[in-house]
Amino acid sequence: MHQPLSEEKVFKDPVHNYIHVQDTAIWRLINTPEFQRLRRIRQLGTSYLTFHGAEHSRFSHSLGVYEITRRIISQFERGDFPDWPKEERLVALCAALLHDVGHGPFSHSIEEAFHMNHEDWTCRIVLGDTKINAVLRQVDEELPQKVAAVIAKTYDKPIVVNLVTSPLDADRMDYLLRDAHSTGVNYGTIDLDRILRLLRPHNGRIVVKESGMHAVEDYLMSRYQMYWQIYFHPVTRSSEILLRKIFKRAKELFKNGYEFGFLLDPLPDLLKGDLTVEQYLMLDESLIQTVFGQWKREKDDILSDLSTRFMDRKLYKYVEIDNMDTDTIDSIRGALAEAGLHPEYDLEIDFPTDLPYDVFRKGGSTDNQILLLGRQGEVREISEVSEIVRSISGIHRGKYHMYYPQNKLNGVKDRLPAEIRNYFVKQ
Amino acid sequence: MHQPLSEEKVFKDPVHNYIHVQDTAIWRLINTPEFQRLRRIRQLGTSYLTFHGAEHSRFSHSLGVYEITRRIISQFERGDFPDWPKEERLVALCAALLHDVGHGPFSHSIEEAFHMNHEDWTCRIVLGDTKINAVLRQVDEELPQKVAAVIAKTYDKPIVVNLVTSPLDADRMDYLLRDAHSTGVNYGTIDLDRILRLLRPHNGRIVVKESGMHAVEDYLMSRYQMYWQIYFHPVTRSSEILLRKIFKRAKELFKNGYEFGFLLDPLPDLLKGDLTVEQYLMLDESLIQTVFGQWKREKDDILSDLSTRFMDRKLYKYVEIDNMDTDTIDSIRGALAEAGLHPEYDLEIDFPTDLPYDVFRKGGSTDNQILLLGRQGEVREISEVSEIVRSISGIHRGKYHMYYPQNKLNGVKDRLPAEIRNYFVKQ
Amino acid sequence: MHQPLSEEKVFKDPVHNYIHVQDTAIWRLINTPEFQRLRRIRQLGTSYLTFHGAEHSRFSHSLGVYEITRRIISQFERGDFPDWPKEERLVALCAALLHDVGHGPFSHSIEEAFHMNHEDWTCRIVLGDTKINAVLRQVDEELPQKVAAVIAKTYDKPIVVNLVTSPLDADRMDYLLRDAHSTGVNYGTIDLDRILRLLRPHNGRIVVKESGMHAVEDYLMSRYQMYWQIYFHPVTRSSEILLRKIFKRAKELFKNGYEFGFLLDPLPDLLKGDLTVEQYLMLDESLIQTVFGQWKREKDDILSDLSTRFMDRKLYKYVEIDNMDTDTIDSIRGALAEAGLHPEYDLEIDFPTDLPYDVFRKGGSTDNQILLLGRQGEVREISEVSEIVRSISGIHRGKYHMYYPQNKLNGVKDRLPAEIRNYFVKQ
Amino acid sequence: MHQPLSEEKVFKDPVHNYIHVQDTAIWRLINTPEFQRLRRIRQLGTSYLTFHGAEHSRFSHSLGVYEITRRIISQFERGDFPDWPKEERLVALCAALLHDVGHGPFSHSIEEAFHMNHEDWTCRIVLGDTKINAVLRQVDEELPQKVAAVIAKTYDKPIVVNLVTSPLDADRMDYLLRDAHSTGVNYGTIDLDRILRLLRPHNGRIVVKESGMHAVEDYLMSRYQMYWQIYFHPVTRSSEILLRKIFKRAKELFKNGYEFGFLLDPLPDLLKGDLTVEQYLMLDESLIQTVFGQWKREKDDILSDLSTRFMDRKLYKYVEIDNMDTDTIDSIRGALAEAGLHPEYDLEIDFPTDLPYDVFRKGGSTDNQILLLGRQGEVREISEVSEIVRSISGIHRGKYHMYYPQNKLNGVKDRLPAEIRNYFVKQ
Repeated sequence: MHQPLSEEKVFKDPVHNYIHVQDTAIWRLINTPEFQRLRRIRQLGTSYLTFHGAEHSRFSHSLGVYEITRRIISQFERGDFPDWPKEERLVALCAALLHDVGHGPFSHSIEEAFHMNHEDWTCRIVLGDTKINAVLRQVDEELPQKVAAVIAKTYDKPIVVNLVTSPLDADRMDYLLRDAHSTGVNYGTIDLDRILRLLRPHNGRIVVKESGMHAVEDYLMSRYQMYWQIYFHPVTRSSEILLRKIFKRAKELFKNGYEFGFLLDPLPDLLKGDLTVEQYLMLDESLIQTVFGQWKREKDDILSDLSTRFMDRKLYKYVEIDNMDTDTIDSIRGALAEAGLHPEYDLEIDFPTDLPYDVFRKGGSTDNQILLLGRQGEVREISEVSEIVRSISGIHRGKYHMYYPQNKLNGVKDRLPAEIRNYFVKQ
Repeated sequence: MHQPLSEEKVFKDPVHNYIHVQDTAIWRLINTPEFQRLRRIRQLGTSYLTFHGAEHSRFSHSLGVYEITRRIISQFERGDFPDWPKEERLVALCAALLHDVGHGPFSHSIEEAFHMNHEDWTCRIVLGDTKINAVLRQVDEELPQKVAAVIAKTYDKPIVVNLVTSPLDADRMDYLLRDAHSTGVNYGTIDLDRILRLLRPHNGRIVVKESGMHAVEDYLMSRYQMYWQIYFHPVTRSSEILLRKIFKRAKELFKNGYEFGFLLDPLPDLLKGDLTVEQYLMLDESLIQTVFGQWKREKDDILSDLSTRFMDRKLYKYVEIDNMDTDTIDSIRGALAEAGLHPEYDLEIDFPTDLPYDVFRKGGSTDNQILLLGRQGEVREISEVSEIVRSISGIHRGKYHMYYPQNKLNGVKDRLPAEIRNYFVKQ
Repeated sequence: MHQPLSEEKVFKDPVHNYIHVQDTAIWRLINTPEFQRLRRIRQLGTSYLTFHGAEHSRFSHSLGVYEITRRIISQFERGDFPDWPKEERLVALCAALLHDVGHGPFSHSIEEAFHMNHEDWTCRIVLGDTKINAVLRQVDEELPQKVAAVIAKTYDKPIVVNLVTSPLDADRMDYLLRDAHSTGVNYGTIDLDRILRLLRPHNGRIVVKESGMHAVEDYLMSRYQMYWQIYFHPVTRSSEILLRKIFKRAKELFKNGYEFGFLLDPLPDLLKGDLTVEQYLMLDESLIQTVFGQWKREKDDILSDLSTRFMDRKLYKYVEIDNMDTDTIDSIRGALAEAGLHPEYDLEIDFPTDLPYDVFRKGGSTDNQILLLGRQGEVREISEVSEIVRSISGIHRGKYHMYYPQNKLNGVKDRLPAEIRNYFVKQ
Repeated sequence: MHQPLSEEKVFKDPVHNYIHVQDTAIWRLINTPEFQRLRRIRQLGTSYLTFHGAEHSRFSHSLGVYEITRRIISQFERGDFPDWPKEERLVALCAALLHDVGHGPFSHSIEEAFHMNHEDWTCRIVLGDTKINAVLRQVDEELPQKVAAVIAKTYDKPIVVNLVTSPLDADRMDYLLRDAHSTGVNYGTIDLDRILRLLRPHNGRIVVKESGMHAVEDYLMSRYQMYWQIYFHPVTRSSEILLRKIFKRAKELFKNGYEFGFLLDPLPDLLKGDLTVEQYLMLDESLIQTVFGQWKREKDDILSDLSTRFMDRKLYKYVEIDNMDTDTIDSIRGALAEAGLHPEYDLEIDFPTDLPYDVFRKGGSTDNQILLLGRQGEVREISEVSEIVRSISGIHRGKYHMYYPQNKLNGVKDRLPAEIRNYFVKQ
């Protein structure tokens, strides 16, 4: 059964000033080992290697997402809006708080390397034999299923799903503000108070009052800038490439029966691709960094070189290339191999996806749309109304980037054909 | 030989906006593995368990200290002050950048547990067979010795020592600002621009023009508040106590030949108390956390309980006690032992030192004084002039705190004599 | 009768982000000519001549005081504290909003020159034949009397008086934050959220929960710094002295039947000392500045010189003097007169009062005390608990300042006896 | 002859923290009556009636423009860039400081009403018999002509003109930051440090290094938002309309020999359209507000009503209209006249110009372009490179707004034909 705390508890927060906790269940969830583990997983993965301030954890971010959600709901309650189902408050708060609990260390890279998905893991943790599950069940036997359904977007109250995941959700608002605060890149400043004040529950969706259009435009422009300035920064991509190559090499070696100088639980099962929830929860960035620190001394040259590069920040260099086709890529790889390099490990060609803009691009599911609520109750997708949103939603900006170890390349440069060599010249 | 970079390089920083690097040597020092290791050591040790924002590293802080020092020196150069020896610029910058490079994981706790000193380690790293040493020697064979001498406060140009370590140095100014920014506690805001503008080299000392007295007062009051709000926070002390007890238990077990379920290099030599520089540099907070994560499953109950408490943030509770004497402490310990607890691990009584105020207390070495420079060139210690400094420098504020595991205490409470039990009641 | 607005209205504010108006009466009060007049009266009087950013008006400040009061009351309502009389909400909000409505142009100087008191004028405006009075009566015939009683501190619900005027009231909290924001002097940053969260209605008083002690200490230290950095700045005093001398001269001339080259309503009645409410409301800083601008061309040399000095910011210089007695002052005045100067206008000796510290000095009426509320409901005055408050509340810092027109003094310097001349040398 | 100050002087500033003055001439210019007058002219005209924080003056802004220019030049000097003519430093600083000195009260409205131009007045003040002229001549007889030529854009060193006036000049950068700071609208935050660091003198132009493209994009988006959020806000337009109508009525009455209840020098000559420099300098916002305050009691109903509306902030209401043609406007005006209103005073139809976007629109003079400097020294207009600039530079966003006195309209509403009445309904 749901219980308010006898006295509100607060966390001092650099972004929201204070995080307010009013429910016993929320307080207990924060104090589970599974939630505390998020302190050992950085919010921005390897971005700290590009922006040294990006050292904040998913723990801090998760508290922030919870706090914004709490403020939205409390505004809905004060306004007494009929479209908001008041009994869903705790489900929504728990889902907001826990939505990232399934993230692994260096999340995006590890997911790609081991074909995992953090949302699945979040659901497994919520539903599995964990303290989180126990706390939720203490409130209501059904609560774990409900929270997992919100995260899996299958919950039967779509407005709760929409509150927790949408192009203008608490998750995105918190990370823009927090990442801007930590890195010092001020493009992320958005008028949070104004946006929150203008959100409305409407017909199973969270919409924005039309008078908030400029604040939403500003939010989308901030996001656009943050993506290109921070999230897609090529130096960060370079460090992610190293990570993926380390995992790839380790998997390969493990499969081939290589005897590792250092391994510790649950690495063997991770490399095998077969982790229990309990084992998954042992994974954090401390453990991964410790393993890589030991692997600097592995006898396999490739693994040891890659691990050293990651730990000591000797990243691959990159060049930007306007256009690339498969033939060119093949010929570069061929030339490198011929010159004695190992193209599988000594080269990566990368094209940043433009996913962030899909979310507010017209068409597609309305789940990915930001809807404006007019005075007469009519609802319009923002790019119908805002020319600036229309303008930026059409922009494709990605370029190809080619990453490689500069010192190794230098060693073989003379042996490369001129037309291949030219690709490696910064323009 | 000293070389400027062909083009200034910058790091985006949340506190100083940009960190400007103009010298090849500084750039190379930042890129050594020894300096990069500081990314894996938090600036505020276990404070993140009290203020979740305190996740920033000594890497960020060290860049900040370097930047403030660079600004001070460049102001001295612009002002062409005769008391500043211009040829010492690079020595001072290197010492500022490297002054924390010898910090170990959870520095204060590990130093106490293993009787180490981070300044010694800094000197050993600067002088030893390290990349830092190599970079410094590339500039000048004598540079490592000079930098180490500044850090050891034995350098023969006392003004350089005073610039790098004094009660108003770049180190303290950066950490007040950075810790305030990260935690969100705004007491740390100081008028950095004004203080920097009013610093003057004078007679082998860095002094402040008298017109800056109010800014210095404000700086000292900020420091006072930050000490009591952040640095001496009892919850942080509680987590440090856990750390120390973990190390204590591990040493004890190691000495007694206990067979650890998990150990990794260089833990055995740490527990033995005999580390090489190379081994010391393998220590970071990732490794320590990984070890503790594995020790949650050790068969020794005490080690496993303490490790679990630290990793899952199940801290000891505390009560504040106005006065304590040895007899009382003994009787509490005795009663706990009788009731079946283990006073060595289940109790800690702590009195925060008031060190921060000594530094500006009148008397003692002038190294610890802040000196004001009057219009006629006369120099006065700040507390002679400022009533507010005089007021706060006399304040002793510490109280005794008694820390203990609440659940264990609850188990034996009934068996404790009433007068002992009363000590454990929050007033 | 009290009416909520159909939809909350907001003002964008640089300090509080948004000011929220929820009551029709508040909205209407803001839109009265009497309240709009506050836009033409600066919050910090002549401080803009020292800190150019200090250009903000009492209008902005009054909205801020209202907003903080609104937040305090809404916290009391949410907490459902029995000691807060809920029916007093609108009385308190109106008094908070209107508490400065009786301020005249360059308030402190004009009050001193014409023996007026802004609180009296506030009451006269609230009770007189004004739009403010009409708006209040529309809600309730008794409301004007109630609001005036709160301002006059005679209201029979002392907690309402204490909420609006006390050493930790919304007025002081807003001005510290707003003056810091406008001037750029960051000493005024206080942890408003924390203080507000810890205020409690208790026994006819607003008290602070003891856990907020550090935040209150910080607030008092901020205030201390702001007083000495901003409010008592000698350059600001210098401009206030000019103002008072202009008024003094004009009164004198008026009394003596001098024919002014320029006068406009209601100046004659101001100089006579006999203003109606309607006339008083015509006074604002625009009018005073316009009059002074015209008086630059008055045929009376003293009036024209003083007016020119004020308008063109040719302020009197000052020297700081440790000690002064009446005899010394007399001898300086005598010597200046003998040398041909006019000591009544060419000299001012000033000693800043230390009023701000009285307010939290122990003893005296408890109205001027900040009370802390302990866990067992016991109440203690803050300086009993806080050593730092005890320390700063005893500090007297004022020095004598002597102000004079440098150019005139230079003209007669040679004719002054050496011991008098020495007083005018900056030390 | 140019003289550095013996000691740098500083002004505390809320935007730049400190303004640094290093030249005697700059210090003296700031202390002229003509420059001090800018304290009585608001930077944002009537915007304070929409955003109450917008109370800052052109004095503060002018200091800010000077400071940014000083920082740019000092960066050019440090970098020793050959394209920057070092001997132009003081000319550029004076022009930057003085560029707004010719602004009148409520500048845009008064210029429109009396067909004046503030740049002409700036030149007349710089060249006329003023203290500013005297200070400049003290440095160099030619300096007034040089400064005036920079302001008139006829100076023979185009790079100085471009430094002082261009789409990325110190003027624009200061006002975005300062207006954002004062109003609390955070859309104006730009990365000033980064932009300044990347400016380069190049071939008679100030250009930006290509690596600064994102910072410039962000600057242009900020400007876009500030224009639509602040500068073109319809409530501000409404108050400007009142101002213009007051001036129009007064001119009309003056021309017709109406006997004003109140007039003061230099109003008659302003209304006649024939002001000397000395008279122009008497005009400031205090004087205008004082006149309007007195005109509340004029016997001419129109003048008295308009003046009351302005002083008491009883603004005209407005409706937004997608499209308007001359015929429609004529029919509305006709209908209002027929119903007994005075369309010349009781109606205004307004279309905000889109001037701000011309400045970075492709084509047209390169003076209005922002140029990026590539690695090989090639120069490209920003919209060639930036898709986002291309996108926003094409956007036209203005709509027609119709302004009118609500109370008067209500009085005649029933007498208006339905199709006319419909225009006055908010959609």
